[in-house]
Amino acid sequence: METKTIAFVLYPGLTPLDLVGPLQVLSVLPVVLPGYEVAVVGETREPVVTDTPVRLAPSHTFAEVPDPAVVLVPGGLAPTMKAMTDETLLSYLRRAAVNADVVGSVCTGSLILGAAGLLEGREATTHWAFLEQLAALDAKPVRRRWVEDGRVFTAAGVSAGIDLALHLVRTLAGEDVARQVQFGIEYDPEPPFGPLDWAAAPHEFWAPLRRAALEEGLAGSPELSARLLG
Amino acid sequence: METKTIAFVLYPGLTPLDLVGPLQVLSVLPVVLPGYEVAVVGETREPVVTDTPVRLAPSHTFAEVPDPAVVLVPGGLAPTMKAMTDETLLSYLRRAAVNADVVGSVCTGSLILGAAGLLEGREATTHWAFLEQLAALDAKPVRRRWVEDGRVFTAAGVSAGIDLALHLVRTLAGEDVARQVQFGIEYDPEPPFGPLDWAAAPHEFWAPLRRAALEEGLAGSPELSARLLG
Repeated sequence: METKTIAFVLYPGLTPLDLVGPLQVLSVLPVVLPGYEVAVVGETREPVVTDTPVRLAPSHTFAEVPDPAVVLVPGGLAPTMKAMTDETLLSYLRRAAVNADVVGSVCTGSLILGAAGLLEGREATTHWAFLEQLAALDAKPVRRRWVEDGRVFTAAGVSAGIDLALHLVRTLAGEDVARQVQFGIEYDPEPPFGPLDWAAAPHEFWAPLRRAALEEGLAGSPELSARLLG
Repeated sequence: METKTIAFVLYPGLTPLDLVGPLQVLSVLPVVLPGYEVAVVGETREPVVTDTPVRLAPSHTFAEVPDPAVVLVPGGLAPTMKAMTDETLLSYLRRAAVNADVVGSVCTGSLILGAAGLLEGREATTHWAFLEQLAALDAKPVRRRWVEDGRVFTAAGVSAGIDLALHLVRTLAGEDVARQVQFGIEYDPEPPFGPLDWAAAPHEFWAPLRRAALEEGLAGSPELSARLLG
């Protein structure tokens, strides 16, 4: 039987929880579902910086995993906007998408999928502060925790990758397995102040953060910058 | 003003979400609270393996951060049990604890704190499947999402580190800042099958996993092995 690979894509400056949340969930799959393996892929196997002090190192290079069954792209701020113009990364995603059963993202990772031309006409989501940018990339933005449109699975901001990953485990291995994984990571959330109060969402605080991230990340790409900065 | 460091402790084989969840939350602190910085500390700065395919690399060595204001230890399975006998790691924690305002853990990281002698008589928690082991280390195990006893802050399994970290941000920087961070990571959890159904907790599934982790990790330490395997 051919081994199916679930590939998490690593690039410099990403938000590490976008990757490590779903990676922790999906890493149990090879144990329970023979024929699956999990890989973290990057341009090289060297550690890359993140938007926190930890650095992450891939297990494989892009060249070693050209044909994953599942490919997931994490997000971030300015470095993610810059990744939207990284032709090596975009080429990898387009190549991976040819045969993948699932093409997915966490947070602003969906903007990279959009830049690769993989979201055209698809319902998709992203971090709540970047939904307009998603529309500018020909996706149909939806404000949900995760969105499944055909083989495209996208999650909302950062921590939503955990919910999406549990949904993916259910899709690939069934609900009993997914419930076991939920016990494994003791995912019984108790946000100290309760769920988010969307009526109090800090839109004004995020507007300049978003603009700065787009301007910095897309400085070398006037066309994309104009589309996304509107 | 002296800079206060929040130190996340890295050791080989850990569960990466235990570290990256709270790291993502607390990494915003230096932006909003002048005088704080965040570090990921390890014996060297080389990447270490985890229980997933990603490797994590520290930003600092133990020697470079001898006196953190906050020290947090992540957990895992067999490698974490082995870390309970790692004298370099235990010495670092004991030294760090001398002046720290907060000594904390995520998941079975509390067993390492216990092995370092830092939980004596303290209420603490850990991954639900390891509560008995915590009792064997002279702590008072409590089944809660997170437990604060004096300066000792411990979280339940894996994903509970995110909740603990938001509580810590509230403690250090106030609730308004903590709510902003919650929006930043869009922490509005929707576990696909709802919260955990504790009446259906897979105790029988976990008993052999726990035994195997303890036997493997503590193979070189008969005394600790006898105490924890009871």
